[in-house]
This record gives sequence, structure tokens and C-alpha cells, in this order.
Amino acid sequence: MNQQDQWERYKKYLDFHPEIGLMVDISRMAFSDDYFDLMEPRIQKAYRDMDALESGAIANPDEKRMVGHYWLRAPDLAPNPQISLDIKNTLCSVKNFARDVHRGEIVASNGKPFSCILLIGMGGSALGPQFVSGALRTSKDPMVPYFFDNTDPDGMDQVLTEIGDGLSETMTIVTSKSGNTIETRNGMLEAKAIYESKGFSFEKHAVMITESDSHFDRIAEKENWLARFAVWDWVGGRTSETSAVGLLPAALQGIEVDGLLEGARLCDQVTRRKETRTNPAALLALMWYHATGGRGKKDMVILPYKDRLQLFPKYLQQLVMESLGKEKDLAGQIVNQGIAVYGNKGSTDQHAYIQQLRDGVNNFFVTFIEVLKDRQGVSLQVDPDVASGDYLNGFLQGTRRALWEKGRESITITIERIDARSLGVLIALYERAVGFYGSLTNLNPYNQPGVEAGKKAAALVIQLQTEALSFLRQEKGKSFTAEEIASAIGLKEEVETVFKILEHAAANVDHGIKKISATPLYHSKYRYAP
Amino acid sequence: MNQQDQWERYKKYLDFHPEIGLMVDISRMAFSDDYFDLMEPRIQKAYRDMDALESGAIANPDEKRMVGHYWLRAPDLAPNPQISLDIKNTLCSVKNFARDVHRGEIVASNGKPFSCILLIGMGGSALGPQFVSGALRTSKDPMVPYFFDNTDPDGMDQVLTEIGDGLSETMTIVTSKSGNTIETRNGMLEAKAIYESKGFSFEKHAVMITESDSHFDRIAEKENWLARFAVWDWVGGRTSETSAVGLLPAALQGIEVDGLLEGARLCDQVTRRKETRTNPAALLALMWYHATGGRGKKDMVILPYKDRLQLFPKYLQQLVMESLGKEKDLAGQIVNQGIAVYGNKGSTDQHAYIQQLRDGVNNFFVTFIEVLKDRQGVSLQVDPDVASGDYLNGFLQGTRRALWEKGRESITITIERIDARSLGVLIALYERAVGFYGSLTNLNPYNQPGVEAGKKAAALVIQLQTEALSFLRQEKGKSFTAEEIASAIGLKEEVETVFKILEHAAANVDHGIKKISATPLYHSKYRYAP
Repeated sequence: MNQQDQWERYKKYLDFHPEIGLMVDISRMAFSDDYFDLMEPRIQKAYRDMDALESGAIANPDEKRMVGHYWLRAPDLAPNPQISLDIKNTLCSVKNFARDVHRGEIVASNGKPFSCILLIGMGGSALGPQFVSGALRTSKDPMVPYFFDNTDPDGMDQVLTEIGDGLSETMTIVTSKSGNTIETRNGMLEAKAIYESKGFSFEKHAVMITESDSHFDRIAEKENWLARFAVWDWVGGRTSETSAVGLLPAALQGIEVDGLLEGARLCDQVTRRKETRTNPAALLALMWYHATGGRGKKDMVILPYKDRLQLFPKYLQQLVMESLGKEKDLAGQIVNQGIAVYGNKGSTDQHAYIQQLRDGVNNFFVTFIEVLKDRQGVSLQVDPDVASGDYLNGFLQGTRRALWEKGRESITITIERIDARSLGVLIALYERAVGFYGSLTNLNPYNQPGVEAGKKAAALVIQLQTEALSFLRQEKGKSFTAEEIASAIGLKEEVETVFKILEHAAANVDHGIKKISATPLYHSKYRYAP
Repeated sequence: MNQQDQWERYKKYLDFHPEIGLMVDISRMAFSDDYFDLMEPRIQKAYRDMDALESGAIANPDEKRMVGHYWLRAPDLAPNPQISLDIKNTLCSVKNFARDVHRGEIVASNGKPFSCILLIGMGGSALGPQFVSGALRTSKDPMVPYFFDNTDPDGMDQVLTEIGDGLSETMTIVTSKSGNTIETRNGMLEAKAIYESKGFSFEKHAVMITESDSHFDRIAEKENWLARFAVWDWVGGRTSETSAVGLLPAALQGIEVDGLLEGARLCDQVTRRKETRTNPAALLALMWYHATGGRGKKDMVILPYKDRLQLFPKYLQQLVMESLGKEKDLAGQIVNQGIAVYGNKGSTDQHAYIQQLRDGVNNFFVTFIEVLKDRQGVSLQVDPDVASGDYLNGFLQGTRRALWEKGRESITITIERIDARSLGVLIALYERAVGFYGSLTNLNPYNQPGVEAGKKAAALVIQLQTEALSFLRQEKGKSFTAEEIASAIGLKEEVETVFKILEHAAANVDHGIKKISATPLYHSKYRYAP
């Protein structure tokens, strides 16, 4: 295809929505001219599935749950008045709480205004807030956010060191939909210990976001925390950015949450339309299907050319992979579906792996994200009549072209600027594209059955640790190999895990375990010698 | 295979090197028992290739260059005395410079000690320093680093806002091996303008790291910058962490660069051995080959269970993908090789995509990175005799097990702790594994021919912009569509790029371009109206 034909194809498929400032270009995807006709029955089914979901059907059949993230920005669409009211009330309480904090009506235990947030959460409880916070932060934000997003002790120490004396003015938000996420529990306990070691009352600095009457909710209630906000079983963690999970930290940081909600709501309106060629979420889902053969054959590389969007690929990695990476389809057939997602930002990533994308294994398609507005104010001219942002844009266009020359496909999404509204648009766009893709492939995008296995296996490791340490403590001073310990506790078959546990325990001071090294290493002995 | 057999296999293949605190476990890779015998002739060839490279052969034939990153930590191995001397002298000057800065003998233009670094660099010039800096930062560091790693104007503004008044005490390090990286040039000009707008003399705050007599080197020499440090054509960007590129910012931050070098040197010694089963870099390369069929059939997912290593997957993404993602092999055959790399950190990523890894498309293998030491000091008990770090380790072991139950392969690399030495080990380990893998697949891992195409295409975009803007300026006040402008400048076939350029220009104030929107969007008109 010559460049003129390419321009005709560009014009033919260009999808532009001025009301949400969104443009989607699929002209560099090599689908055939009859592709849309062929797929129309299937995408119409996806629209019907989505209508049913939005009307309150049990769209997550495994967990017997409704899927309601679209109601969060249009509460009157919720399937019953109680849900509408819950959403409105929670939004209202989020905004009131943030206002009272900003006005100094809710203050830290030392009477000073809160100036920092420590958000403790995992997965959807952290990634959305991290993405939005990073994308919209300014030097004038009333509160600066920090995150515990792991159970790494040293990582927590690093964050606490960074907060430093600011801890006295730090509000800790604990977020866990289920109210029993173990990493979040650990972070909460570590944070509490630090507050108390400095003489601050943790509960006067602590806010909980969780499902009503969950384990965490009861803790927060009993301890009389500063505030509690609700999420509901019909909100999934990875689609919770427009619930209190995302809105509360955003509002506290000074982000215009109404803009975020409006962007999402307007994008939802656009992507509810049944005319496929002008439905940007349907276009994305169909392009993913085209690129991956509906079977995850290609990776999705996300390249926003904007530093503020650097966490968007990671956010999408969670949204797409956890939603679409499934063993079975809705009919119970084993399908091992999914699309791998990676990427950071352009043009930086060009220096990391465009070499492979252009020349190497063709196992991916790129989604470029273009932001038209370069910066606040006027730019320096780095060459006559050329600004740094012109180069940024030039690298995007140039890379798209260089990839296409080699038969590498790409989608380009264009937004006008980065603000709360455009982030709401992007979030809603991908939420719906994932839903459509689930219908195209007959998956349940709203469950995550595979996550449990790792958690259970981890619980087994902790249990083994308890048994191994308890044995060594009883035999205080005597030394044993991992094989001997595993036998002694009656779990010979778990010797490898016991060995790993002891290696870890001996490297730390906490359990009083000392190691007598041997060669080979697995002949080393361990003893309790506090 | 039952767990007992698995333990026997674990013991059989466990590779442990106490002298570098490194353990590599390949027991969860499903290679056959005869795999090592089958591959032995090929890996022996890889050792010979590596010996030749280390002796100064032209190991990068396209660019007719030696490949010398191993000499950087063992200068006496360099193929001639001049290179040895260059390495030693540069290391000496890096350390002396950092010492003089820390002692206040080299100070900012206002006479104060330098307290911040602004490192301007792309790709290898930024990722290594970012990784090492993030992994080793402490609250007592004498200098705090910031980075320009893109040509995003708003991104630069954000960094400068963060530095704020600290700019008066900020040393800017400009790093570009070639001395003509355009993004770096733009960052340098933007930084210079800010220094000057605040009344500081840029050259008194500026340090250059580049090849001798490059374009940038001549600028720094002419403007009499604070200091200049050399890199050489035999150091690749993605393997430059143990050159001045990595060592200077590390030394200034207060990192023990001798430890970094020693770790790398000792790891090089270990990975030079020809006994495959005890050569950890050979084990990695062979496992990659096993997993990907030597053809990039699977993605490499890197999961360090340690917040400080969060940037290591990104660092490896560059090292592996840019080195191995190649169109042609050394025989000139088209092979479209490469291995896609992604990952962030565990257990955080478990909440993002372990769902897909366990249940979804089996197109990956995981490398877990385990760090035995949890934190400085004693841990809180979050459960009786259980610390947060026990859970972190438990999640690693549990996830490895849950994946293996489903036939998903993994490698586990264990290091004792995070320090300069262990980072040196990890960097050297992967540098050599990439080199070995290149030999196994008959690739040149040291060139990047595909990168040029994107740069050239970007230069064309900038040239088109200049022509389009120049036309509109001549026709001041008159309005034209993109098609009209492309025709008028005699580049009808470039209309799509012209359209994209104008959309971008009209969204910014810099070029005086106004847009008259139309439907469809590509019928919009643009005019020069400053």
C-alpha cells in the first residue's frame, strides 16, 4: 500500500469524538476490509452482554456478582435505588471529607493540618491511585501521597524514611475491598507500630476503605478510626478507580474528582453506542482480537509519549491481564486465554527495545498514546522553530512509521491534554474494551480464580515456617539439616520449602536461627540460638 | 514428578557461589535430563566467543568495534596498555571528583556544596544509573539524583519543579556516549535555559560524560564545563553501568563504587569458567534457549521480590531486548530473534497478573529474584513469630509453586542482600548471559541497527514540520487543510504526517498555528496567526 492509499485508509477508519477529546486511529492494523462485517454479529453480542451487565445482570457468574463500575459515574443507571443512593452518598462523603481536611476541620492528632497521605493497598487498591496521582500531581497539591504497595519490610522502611517527621501530619488510608488482604494487613500493622512508637495515636490518622462489615471494617469501627468509606461487592479491584478507592486519595491530593467522573461518564456514553465503527472501545477490542487471533498470540505494548502517563501501561497490565488471562471460558472449556501487556513511555522506551520491536520477533502490537498539548506555557526553541515537544511527537510518528515499514502493527490513541477528565476517559475506554473483548472470547473478565492458588501456597509456606521454627526452638541449640527438620515435623515431602524457609530465616535476626554452612549448601545445618 | 523427586532435581541442579553470594535454581525449568549434554558443544562455542571478545576481538562486526565492558572492572585484562590506563585513569578521576564534591572543594556557582544531581541521558545513559540509584538510596546520601530521561517538556518541568530552589546546588550531568542524542541535547538546552533564567552559570554546574571529541564533548570543552569524563567506542550504552556513565552518578550519590566493581569483577570470574553446570550465566542463557526454543517463543517475566529492585526488570528489558532483538543473524540470515521482557516486583505483581500467568496463555517463563535479608534491624511480628518479610518470601515460594503446578516454568535467583556488590553481581551476570545467548543463536548482541530507522523517520517529521510551518507563515492568515498544505510543499504523499504535525502544532502556543475545526476532522484548516 502506498502512502496515498494509506492516507485514504487513515481517513476511512479514523474515529474522533470531540466531546471527549479522543481520537483512535486503527489504520496501522492490518485487518482486511471485510473484517468489521465478519465481526459484526459477535460485537453486537458484546453490546448485548454489556447492556445486560449495566442493567444489573450477574455478569460475574463464578462469584455470583453484579459488575457495576459503570454506575459509579452514572448512579442513576444502577439497577436499584439503594445502589444509586449508596454511590451518591459515598461520593458526597468523599468530597465532604476532603473539603474538611483541606479546610483544617479534620486535623492530625497534633492539631496540624494533614499534609501527606500514606496509602496502603495492593493491586487495584494501589495501581489506580498511583497512576492518577502521578499523572496529575502539581507543586500546589494540598497533600502528597506515599504508598505501601507490597509486604517488603525494607520497602516500607524506605517510604517511612521519606515521610520522616511528616508522619505527624500523615493520614494513612488502608484500602482493601475484601478487608483481609494480607500484604495490606502487614502494612497497616507496620504503619501503626511506627505511629505509636512516635507517640501518635494511629486511629486518629487512619481511614479505611473496604466493604461494609469486612474484617478490616470491623477493626476500623472498633478502634474508632477517623473515617470509613464503602466499596461494594459489585466493584472489582481493577475497576475501582471511580469508587472511593480512587476518588478519596485523588480528592485529598486536590484532584478534581468530578472531572474524572465526568470523563468516564461521557466516555461510557460514547462507548455504549452500537455503531461499531464509531465506538472506540469496540474498535480496541476488535483490534486486540485481530492482532492476537482471539488467543493471546501477540503481546500488547503500550507506549504513552508523555511522562505523566508512565504508570498507565502498568495500570493496563493489571486491568487487561487479570481480566482476560483465564483458564476456562464461560462454557467451561479450557482455553488458556490472555494478552500479555507491557510498556513504559516513549520516546524513552525507543532506546530500550524499539530495536527488538522493529527487527526482532513479531509477537506484539503497539498502542501509541499521543498527547497533543506539550506543557503549560511557551517552549524554548531547541532548533529554529522546533520545540522539545515537537521532537517527542516526531519520535512517536517516526516510530509508528518505522514499525509499519516492517509490518509491525499499531493503534494510536490521541488525547488533547492530561487532566482529570481525560484520565477518566482513558480509564473508562479500557474498562469497556476489556468487557467487549471478554464477550468476543466468551470469557468472564471479572473473576480471578487463579490468584487464590498462590495465596494458599503462601499460607502453606508460613505454616511450614511456624512448624520448622517451633521444632528448632524445642531442640534449642541442636543443629539439623533441612531434610532432618522436614522429617522431624512429619513433612518430608516439603523439604525443599523447609530449606528455603531456613535459608531466609537464617539471613535475618527475627527468629534466632543460626546456620552452619556446608558444601553443598543443602547440607547446611540450622539451629535456634537467640 | 512428586515433591521428593523434585527435591532431588533441585539439589542436582542447584548452583551456589558463596564468594559472590549468588544462587541459581533452574529446577522448575522443564528441560530434559540430556539437555546439558546436547547443548554442551554450543555452549563451549559461546565460551570461546566470549574469550575472543574479552581478548579484544572485533566482537561487534557491524560497527567494527571491540566489546569491552568486562575490562571496566578488570582493566588489566584489556587488550592493550592504553585501554587499561584509560580505564584506571577515568575511575580515578571519577572517585577524585566525587571526593572533591563531597568535601566541598568543588562547589556550585553560589559557593555552596552540591546537594542534587540532574542526570540527563537516554537509554543506557539513564536506566543503569536509575536502577542503581533507586536500589541503594539512603536518607544519608550526600547528593539526591533527578533524571531527564525523555524529551517531554512537561516531564522536564515536573522534575525542575521538584528540584525547585535546589537548582542552585544542583550539578547537571549530561551523558551521551555518541555525543549527539537528540533527546539529551534537548534536555541539556532546557536545563541550561532554566539555570540561566535564575542567574546561574550553567557551565559551572555542568559535567559531561561522552566519547572524546564527540559533538557534546566539544561543546563542554568550549564552554569550559566543570568536568568531562570519557567513555569509549568499545562500551555499549546498555552495558555502560560500570563505566563513568554509571560510576560517576553513583559515586556522587555516595554509593560505594568499588563494591559495585568488585561484585561485577568476581561475577565475571565465576562466569568465565567452562564448567557449564557451575556457570550461572551459562545456566541462564541455556534456560532462555530452552524456554524460547532459541526463537523468542516465550516472554521473560522478571519478578524481584524486593522494592529496591523494582527497576531491575526495566534495566533487563533494555539489556536483553536491545541485545537480542535482531532481524539477521551473524550469517546474514533473516531470523527475527529476540526475547520480550517485562515485570515490576513481587508480591505486588501477583495482584496484577499472576492470574494470567497461572491460568492464561503459557507464553512466558518467570525469573524470580529472591533477597534473603529483609531489612535493617528487627522486624515487627505481624503474626506470632511471623514478620512481613516472611510473608514476602512466602508469596515468592507460593507463587513459584502455584505456577509449577500448572506447568509454568521459572528460574529463581537468590542473593543475600542488596548492596553495591550484589548489584554488581547481578549486572555482570546478565551481561554475560546475554553474550552467551547471542552465541547460542549466532547473533550480534552488541549492535542496534533497527534504532536508526525510527530516528530517521523522526527527523523527516521535524523536516516536514519546518516546511509546513514555513508555508503557513508565508501565507499568513490564510487557512489550508492538511491535504492542501502537503500538496503546496510538494509532498502530497506525506499528507498524513502533515496532518498529525498540524494537529500537534495547533494544540500548542509555540508556532502560532490556529485551527478551524471541521467534520470530519481531517477537513480542518490551519493558519498562521501569531
